[in-house]
Amino acid sequence: MAEADSVHGHGEARVQGGLVAALGRERPLRLESGVTLGPFTIAYQTYGRLDAERRNAILICHALTGDQHVASRHPVTGKPGWWESMVGPGRVIDTERYFVICANVLGGCMGSSGPTEIDPASGKPYGLAFPVVTIADMVNAQAMLLDHLGIPDLFCVIGGSMGGMQVLQWAASYPDRVFSAIPIACAARHSAQNIAFHEVGRQAIMADPEWRGGDYLSLGSNPRAGLAVARMAAHITYLSETALHRKFGRNLQNRERITFGFEADFQVESYLRHQGSTFVERFDANSYLYITRAMDYFDLAAEHGGVLAKAFSGTRTRFCVVSFTSDWLFPTRESREVVHALNAAAANVSFVEIESDKGHDAFLLDEPEMFKILRGFLEGSAEHRGLRR
Amino acid sequence: MAEADSVHGHGEARVQGGLVAALGRERPLRLESGVTLGPFTIAYQTYGRLDAERRNAILICHALTGDQHVASRHPVTGKPGWWESMVGPGRVIDTERYFVICANVLGGCMGSSGPTEIDPASGKPYGLAFPVVTIADMVNAQAMLLDHLGIPDLFCVIGGSMGGMQVLQWAASYPDRVFSAIPIACAARHSAQNIAFHEVGRQAIMADPEWRGGDYLSLGSNPRAGLAVARMAAHITYLSETALHRKFGRNLQNRERITFGFEADFQVESYLRHQGSTFVERFDANSYLYITRAMDYFDLAAEHGGVLAKAFSGTRTRFCVVSFTSDWLFPTRESREVVHALNAAAANVSFVEIESDKGHDAFLLDEPEMFKILRGFLEGSAEHRGLRR
Repeated sequence: MAEADSVHGHGEARVQGGLVAALGRERPLRLESGVTLGPFTIAYQTYGRLDAERRNAILICHALTGDQHVASRHPVTGKPGWWESMVGPGRVIDTERYFVICANVLGGCMGSSGPTEIDPASGKPYGLAFPVVTIADMVNAQAMLLDHLGIPDLFCVIGGSMGGMQVLQWAASYPDRVFSAIPIACAARHSAQNIAFHEVGRQAIMADPEWRGGDYLSLGSNPRAGLAVARMAAHITYLSETALHRKFGRNLQNRERITFGFEADFQVESYLRHQGSTFVERFDANSYLYITRAMDYFDLAAEHGGVLAKAFSGTRTRFCVVSFTSDWLFPTRESREVVHALNAAAANVSFVEIESDKGHDAFLLDEPEMFKILRGFLEGSAEHRGLRR
Repeated sequence: MAEADSVHGHGEARVQGGLVAALGRERPLRLESGVTLGPFTIAYQTYGRLDAERRNAILICHALTGDQHVASRHPVTGKPGWWESMVGPGRVIDTERYFVICANVLGGCMGSSGPTEIDPASGKPYGLAFPVVTIADMVNAQAMLLDHLGIPDLFCVIGGSMGGMQVLQWAASYPDRVFSAIPIACAARHSAQNIAFHEVGRQAIMADPEWRGGDYLSLGSNPRAGLAVARMAAHITYLSETALHRKFGRNLQNRERITFGFEADFQVESYLRHQGSTFVERFDANSYLYITRAMDYFDLAAEHGGVLAKAFSGTRTRFCVVSFTSDWLFPTRESREVVHALNAAAANVSFVEIESDKGHDAFLLDEPEMFKILRGFLEGSAEHRGLRR
């Protein structure tokens, strides 16, 4: 397999064990808000090699708290990549066959432009001076990254949760650049309940006096407590009641009986506190505000007169839509709405609801049925695209 | 109908438009933790008149953030009682027929002993020096209130959510004092997911620097922001996704389009913020810690070797168990477990799952089917008890 010349060529630097592209120098990115952003940076990782025809690229879109370190050690936590069960040599997304790209979203905190980066206008971290971005803005930035890498189109774009929103947006915004699309555990618009949970998280952050109106980085503080509470609340929504019950039930944490106090008597409390405290080590509070906001604003049909099918009209992309039975954050009926719209657009679509009791996070976990289905879908798609084995 | 003499007799004072009983003077209350509490106060409201035989008393048990003002104006908010649709002249719980008692729970903040009250030991508000209490402790305190009022037994004990937990505890602890029992939208033990949500709320409160290790009342501060976040997170769990979608969907709040900022663009955000900010006007943060903890600790089977049926063995109480289809905080299967245990104990039990899309809070709302069922159950029970019309 030959590697295309321009990939990882010029204009990039390696940071934190990854790559960063400086984009929007000549032509800035026009955000949905009307603000123009440029120059800006997109930090990304790649795995595998682009073939000579530049036709084997798979873009992986990460979720709210994910990042570009999809299949390699995380530079901050030292933990394995967040989707190593899916991505790697011989895995479903086989890095010996495909050229895999994963970019930190615009607004993120792992090297792409966002509220933690220095605002050229002030010389200080942006904080809330960073413009609010949308899922479409994230996707447009990724498209600029592909231009920069000299990749005309994607063999596949895949992602779960907010990653799935980006997949849908890619298919709608760049139908000719997406051969196949795999939106997992997502929706074409964020529900009222999900907006409500996000708002709780944002209020928890903004209620923390250490947040300081968003200027904490300049002022040397950090709203860790608020961000931890936001993470704890969100984390419950990523699991199912069944999973929580099976994993923890009412088991006590390193004690024989309840202590009649406010320590973490129950394992589930201890687990949640741990989720909160480890999260703040690797994530930025303002990024959390920006990315949750982008999800809240996502409503693909709204851009098309309220008719979701119009977002996909004339599409030639092959879709595989995946949901999980116990996902109550993005329940199957929301995936079904996407499928109905794709059907109405006469798209090539397969849809699978996977039986799992692991809740929304199932897409990140060992789900043999998901692996099997996606392997089949990718192999079929690769054949249709004429990719060499 | 004759009014019994001793009710509202001696040893009480009216405060905030209600009554307060001083209890545990001669014999203190031994809490489940082993701590003895006494003297202590229970603030309560009554409606209607106790009949000469003292057989028409109904005890209403309130939920986490409820209080004794069940059917009369709230002294702090000025709003109607929290269950006026259910309780009043000619209502299902007919105050022209029944003598209705509703007491603020132990640990509460509306006049019953709890963390806001003055600790005789220090002369300052208890704060976290108040002993942690359980549902059984709350019920034992209510039983002492009945002794104080000269009421030998209850025609009925009724309540929803945490109120329903108290109902179950009443039936288990005082089978001979409960003629009929109506546990609504509750469970015999608190689930891992519910403990998790409570823990998020507690962490939000304790993360607020104004909480000051629980000593905020002595130190002149108030963890309003933390308590508001706790309320917001909890409030989502009281509704259903359908209710949120119907009520708010993705509607914007007093604006034509999204603002690309962190103001409350969506009605659901504005609504949640309002829920948070009004709640802190009437509720105490430490009480929130104590009462959520009491719910977390509730596990009726655990007291009986893990066999819930044993909690009700030999019971002669007539039960009416009620759940709601869209209640995901206390789903129907948890009510069904109670019913199975009652069946195994050969109890007299009827069970109704009411079709409603209003979520857990349905029990507080206009639910004609619930009214109809409870009216029938109460009339049948009154006939069996030989109550005069």
